Amino acid sequence: MTAEPRRRGRPSRKDAESGPGARERILEAARTEFAERGYDKTSVRGIAKAAGVDPALVHHYFGTKDEVFAAAVEVSFEPAMIVPAVLGQGPEGIGERLARHFLGVWENPVTRAPLLAVVRSAVTHETAATVLRGFVLRRVLERVATDLDVPDPKFRAELAASHMIGIALLRYVLRMEPLASADPEEIVAVVAPTLQRYLTGN
Amino acid sequence: MTAEPRRRGRPSRKDAESGPGARERILEAARTEFAERGYDKTSVRGIAKAAGVDPALVHHYFGTKDEVFAAAVEVSFEPAMIVPAVLGQGPEGIGERLARHFLGVWENPVTRAPLLAVVRSAVTHETAATVLRGFVLRRVLERVATDLDVPDPKFRAELAASHMIGIALLRYVLRMEPLASADPEEIVAVVAPTLQRYLTGN
Repeated sequence: MTAEPRRRGRPSRKDAESGPGARERILEAARTEFAERGYDKTSVRGIAKAAGVDPALVHHYFGTKDEVFAAAVEVSFEPAMIVPAVLGQGPEGIGERLARHFLGVWENPVTRAPLLAVVRSAVTHETAATVLRGFVLRRVLERVATDLDVPDPKFRAELAASHMIGIALLRYVLRMEPLASADPEEIVAVVAPTLQRYLTGN
Repeated sequence: MTAEPRRRGRPSRKDAESGPGARERILEAARTEFAERGYDKTSVRGIAKAAGVDPALVHHYFGTKDEVFAAAVEVSFEPAMIVPAVLGQGPEGIGERLARHFLGVWENPVTRAPLLAVVRSAVTHETAATVLRGFVLRRVLERVATDLDVPDPKFRAELAASHMIGIALLRYVLRMEPLASADPEEIVAVVAPTLQRYLTGN
């Protein structure tokens, strides 16, 4: 949530009138709109209204609705960007570190809400799925795979990711018991050896 | 897909005019509507129209929209009902049998489409999530857990389920490569030992 704002060129005088922080307000509004309305029902106009700016300013900073969505995904996945660092500490205990980091991100309501919104959009809307696929593949899995010393590192990294995402789905979205109420460390204890095997070989 | 039609009481003369197979046509229409429009946008009226029957007949056979959805989930999950049988053959090779059965169901477009529809609805709509949770918990996981000889059998069964569902999500919904194009047997080979450990202890 500490992303450096990156602007598309210099804002015009009209944009400047919207005051500093307009970009951040738009991004925040976009995350809320996508989370609450879903991908289909969210519009650039609605995001602009929620942010208290002109729709042209949304286009100026981000471009199309897809591009606003991509920016919202990027901010939402910042905690995931730490994954390569988490894994970069060497192969020993990599499974446990990954499981604990992942559950920590989902346990925190502040980081969970936008992730939920992205997953919901991606599951139901092809364009959102494409954005998530491109982003997660390019940014997270490829970096992780680079550091792995196993055959088919991307395949292995995706299987590890599939397990984590499946746990998030059952625990936080569908809230299936007893998984939903289990202590995170109980989950880490069972899942860590799996992730360890996937990421460091068998 | 060979469900015995179960009727809620005797159809009236008016219902009978809709001809035999009306219940099946309604159910088929419901699955298509939920799959294509999502839970929110699907209505009993729309399902009736697609099935070529009066909305009253939908109410007669199934009740409310939630109950039509539950019936559609039930039919869609019939391949999952075989899971207890798959697992009932004893602990040896249980992980491999489960992984192969699950991927087989998702590989087949006929059984995959309704599962996708259910997952999409459940991820985005709380009522649909509740139906799925009740159904999967009651029908599948509890039966599986009964047969397991491990501590916390339901917790273990859910962790196994979370991995399978996560793979389905990445492979069939988000279509992330290389997982999306991997040979099912490649996936079975890596995942089976995980499921085996979860379901038969460590």
